[in-house]
Amino acid sequence: MCQLLGMNCNVPTDITFSFEGFRRRGGQTDQHADGWGIAFFETDGWRVFLDPLPSATSPVADFVRSYPIKSRNVIAHIRKATHGEISLANTHPFRRELWGQEWVFAHNGNLASFSYAGQRFMSIGNTDSEQALCFILDRLASKFQRTPELAALEETFSECCQALSSHGTFNCLLGMNDVLLVHCSTDLHYLVRQAPFSIAHLADADIQVDFAKHTAPRDRVAIIATQPLTDNEQWTALGKGEVALFRNGERISPAHAS
Amino acid sequence: MCQLLGMNCNVPTDITFSFEGFRRRGGQTDQHADGWGIAFFETDGWRVFLDPLPSATSPVADFVRSYPIKSRNVIAHIRKATHGEISLANTHPFRRELWGQEWVFAHNGNLASFSYAGQRFMSIGNTDSEQALCFILDRLASKFQRTPELAALEETFSECCQALSSHGTFNCLLGMNDVLLVHCSTDLHYLVRQAPFSIAHLADADIQVDFAKHTAPRDRVAIIATQPLTDNEQWTALGKGEVALFRNGERISPAHAS
Repeated sequence: MCQLLGMNCNVPTDITFSFEGFRRRGGQTDQHADGWGIAFFETDGWRVFLDPLPSATSPVADFVRSYPIKSRNVIAHIRKATHGEISLANTHPFRRELWGQEWVFAHNGNLASFSYAGQRFMSIGNTDSEQALCFILDRLASKFQRTPELAALEETFSECCQALSSHGTFNCLLGMNDVLLVHCSTDLHYLVRQAPFSIAHLADADIQVDFAKHTAPRDRVAIIATQPLTDNEQWTALGKGEVALFRNGERISPAHAS
Repeated sequence: MCQLLGMNCNVPTDITFSFEGFRRRGGQTDQHADGWGIAFFETDGWRVFLDPLPSATSPVADFVRSYPIKSRNVIAHIRKATHGEISLANTHPFRRELWGQEWVFAHNGNLASFSYAGQRFMSIGNTDSEQALCFILDRLASKFQRTPELAALEETFSECCQALSSHGTFNCLLGMNDVLLVHCSTDLHYLVRQAPFSIAHLADADIQVDFAKHTAPRDRVAIIATQPLTDNEQWTALGKGEVALFRNGERISPAHAS
């Protein structure tokens, strides 16, 4: 199984604190050493860094930690291979363009009985995860002519996740511009940091940060992770089969959004 | 106008020497300071590093120089913006998946009168260059059901380049797995380094390397660049409208390839 990390914010924010704890699970505090990747949405495009090396010791991870890219939407993944060998083509996050927008995806779990050849979207590597992304995007492309309203997008995403979950464990993050869709099959937690900000302490390293010193009063940041990344904050566990949509650093119900 | 750099090899090779000269044209020895990017094909997938900052001073470029990724096919680009603002979405190389393979593209020139809304493939940013990639891939997707033989691929690529060149200057590199297709409209040069190897000296910096010390007898590396990167080697200029295909570090004629 793998580990997921997502961040969604109302202003561009760097993820170095959360990433520092997260990357240690890639071969140091946990056994997810079969590559890792991180995708940042910056203004109008995604920038993705991938490495088939363990994140705890990856030179690319050292670079990402030292170069604080500010982003409103981030998806990161560290891999424990189940389907597919350790290689660049099998390293999450995966990405595809649809309707002139880039869709970025990472999966935790194992769809043991799932196999999808793809229609318009086909796998480059040979993971169940990339096939799942192709399945979701093929479904969206067949159902809509252009990017749908968020409520319709969430509904179709939810239907796809339900179908995929019948094949095994399917926790996932799907990003498009500043929107982050998530689905929980077994393990996914989130929290929203907003004023009044406090001190957060990493669960995987004796490192803490006082967010009150690094934030403006209106900043809002949602963090989504397989397991809570801090040991002194209140994380909310998503339920089995639950879908959530984050935008501007908060969880929203698109059906009721203005 | 921009600058292009391609490398195609028969064994995984690092591009640090050529990249060191090339990156200096991004804001130091030349005026191409509107972002840059580099894509490496590694075994089975492409890894792309992008930065909207000038390559001469970019932290990502510092990292790429210090972390010698070995690759059999590389496409790099430094940008002087003509169409589209300076942004991540407008930073080359661009990439798309078609038939389960990733296609990576960079363009030098200006298609002043070209505008393409896209069909299956649509632009994420707003450059003529990304629209040109969408045009080429839409044409391939409409003409073939799967990746064609190299001769047919080169022929369709050539037809597309001819059509695009009627709108302006169109020097470009298109990579797919270990294959590198290039089209020259005005400026594109190449050389093939193979045994006996000698000392090469950069045109943009007083740096030289003795390739005899860093190569095996069977290594073969083709370098393709807008302008020659070294001042003591014999570069071949491609002609106006000329297409070339490189594989395993040499220029091949796919119609006659076994």
